[in-house]
Amino acid sequence: MPEPHHRFLRACLRLPTDRVPIWIMRQAGRYLPEYMAVRKQAGDFLSLCKNPELATQVTLQPVDRFGLDAAILFSDILVVPEAMGMGLNFGLGEGPILDPAINAPGDVEKLRVIDPEQDLDYVMNTIRTIRRELADRVPLIGFSGSPWTLATYMVEGGSSKTFSRIKGMMYDRPEVLQALLDRLVDAVTRYLNAQIRHGVQAVQIFDTWGGVLGHDEFLEFSLESMRRIVAGLERTGPDGAVVPVILFAKGCGSHLERMAASGCDVVGLDWTTDLAQARLRVEGRVALQGNMDPAVLSATPERIRREAERTLKAYGPHPGHVFNLGHGITPDCTPRKVAALVEAVQGFSFGSASS
Amino acid sequence: MPEPHHRFLRACLRLPTDRVPIWIMRQAGRYLPEYMAVRKQAGDFLSLCKNPELATQVTLQPVDRFGLDAAILFSDILVVPEAMGMGLNFGLGEGPILDPAINAPGDVEKLRVIDPEQDLDYVMNTIRTIRRELADRVPLIGFSGSPWTLATYMVEGGSSKTFSRIKGMMYDRPEVLQALLDRLVDAVTRYLNAQIRHGVQAVQIFDTWGGVLGHDEFLEFSLESMRRIVAGLERTGPDGAVVPVILFAKGCGSHLERMAASGCDVVGLDWTTDLAQARLRVEGRVALQGNMDPAVLSATPERIRREAERTLKAYGPHPGHVFNLGHGITPDCTPRKVAALVEAVQGFSFGSASS
Repeated sequence: MPEPHHRFLRACLRLPTDRVPIWIMRQAGRYLPEYMAVRKQAGDFLSLCKNPELATQVTLQPVDRFGLDAAILFSDILVVPEAMGMGLNFGLGEGPILDPAINAPGDVEKLRVIDPEQDLDYVMNTIRTIRRELADRVPLIGFSGSPWTLATYMVEGGSSKTFSRIKGMMYDRPEVLQALLDRLVDAVTRYLNAQIRHGVQAVQIFDTWGGVLGHDEFLEFSLESMRRIVAGLERTGPDGAVVPVILFAKGCGSHLERMAASGCDVVGLDWTTDLAQARLRVEGRVALQGNMDPAVLSATPERIRREAERTLKAYGPHPGHVFNLGHGITPDCTPRKVAALVEAVQGFSFGSASS
Repeated sequence: MPEPHHRFLRACLRLPTDRVPIWIMRQAGRYLPEYMAVRKQAGDFLSLCKNPELATQVTLQPVDRFGLDAAILFSDILVVPEAMGMGLNFGLGEGPILDPAINAPGDVEKLRVIDPEQDLDYVMNTIRTIRRELADRVPLIGFSGSPWTLATYMVEGGSSKTFSRIKGMMYDRPEVLQALLDRLVDAVTRYLNAQIRHGVQAVQIFDTWGGVLGHDEFLEFSLESMRRIVAGLERTGPDGAVVPVILFAKGCGSHLERMAASGCDVVGLDWTTDLAQARLRVEGRVALQGNMDPAVLSATPERIRREAERTLKAYGPHPGHVFNLGHGITPDCTPRKVAALVEAVQGFSFGSASS
């Protein structure tokens, strides 16, 4: 298999690069005025996700503006539960609503087995459109929520602070939760494989809510589901290139070694994990992505530059680092701050670093 | 110094006990109908905190109902910023508001050096009243928020999801944040020492928001402040008994070894940390408190019993375990569930355990 030439893909595979690549979780988002303009045009968030032309525009905006090293498909993790038959609405400022929430075994049985080519054809269309517009400038990352994270929304009926419904299910009726997770493993595997067939060049699985689980529960109910997905992915694209798999689980630094043994190529870290120690802990088995605190973007450009360099130095001059924030960029950020971050990472080299 | 006879205090000091003691964070709270009745009588939450007779009643309610092994002073961490001169209000369902928020160095300078005997005399009065009513049935725990946690409310002006204001201060004007933390180290040390003089028999420092900090920032801006407080505490009460110090930092399991080296007697763990591993990691230097997921209380009594036993077995038959939840009890709990938990812990013995 030929080695990829894009520095993002090379870093994912722990191959040498000219510099550390950077992309930013939620890089296409509300902090960008050009995003807000397109979103207004689309009407609402979900309509934007389902409009391949507009979704392509917002996917490309941050790549064009900042010269980032990868694009990420503009979409939402909850299109999967919707494709499985749940009602999905984004209330005004109140977060997503999935209706009716999953509770009984019968609710799980009613979920549809998805055919992503049909049920999520708008995503596949968006992927093809983005690839055409990108013209191989940078690679395109596809993504999905993890089964556990998707299940939290499906059982809680939306966002939650306490996760008491899904945890109640986990403790009292683990077989119902497991049946739901099994369905989601199947759906997410199909979905990501379809994304790969239509042209995404890497995939990331977001386990946003893995960190709310106890130690053993994370291994049993979240990591195991992700491991099964990773095992079921087609790891080469239609062009024969290898498709790296990134696992991101927020608040799960203590599980790093096990995540690294899941079969993925890259583990994404939040900012609470020490990157230098993390590199030692994974012993070269995976690349690492991260992990600057998004809140650093509240600071001055000069301080942003110093913190970016601190992150780069923490990983050190070794192959296998993809620079990113430790979580998604927040809407209160400004493009000027993001520009400062990207310039700092792209201008940094271990030979010439100021300290 | 004579050994304490209460099993809670003995466990804090890693002395043998007849069984593992249990208390529950936020044990006096909205899940109890008798609490809601007293709170209605008081008018609002802050008035309840400031009324020694009523605060005593709600402190004792869960001890009387469940036979818990310790009482914890009913109060709120934000009475300290209020005593330092900030305006404090609890809006209806919107969380606390501290006004005006700290921003400039001048705001820090304006904060008062507190005299807890005067400025927080209602707390001292409550402590004396509780001790009298308890009549040595069980020990009384006092508490304070950590400097970092208090600072988040003072700089954000209340609760926050992103902590962008205080983190912006941390990155751009660390000297302002440090000046604020210095004031808080002084205030919290004075406050806890006054609590000890008036009769609390152990103290817990709550670092609710330490887990939002990056690895190095937690050590510099949260743990170091707590270490200084621990070093400044009077570790014996007026009766000559040793007063154990408990450090609880949510989401900080990766810092366990350093917390154990802070000078405290007990480290409180949230539910994401494996208790068996934690015990090995602290190498007998401290006792451990915790760490069942509060969400287990959403499950059936039978499942609650099994999870409680799993927690007890994880620590194992060694001295130095104080049973607790990994975070505060949630308002959607029911007294019946809490009773099941307490019975499970109190009925468990390593000799007779079912598995």
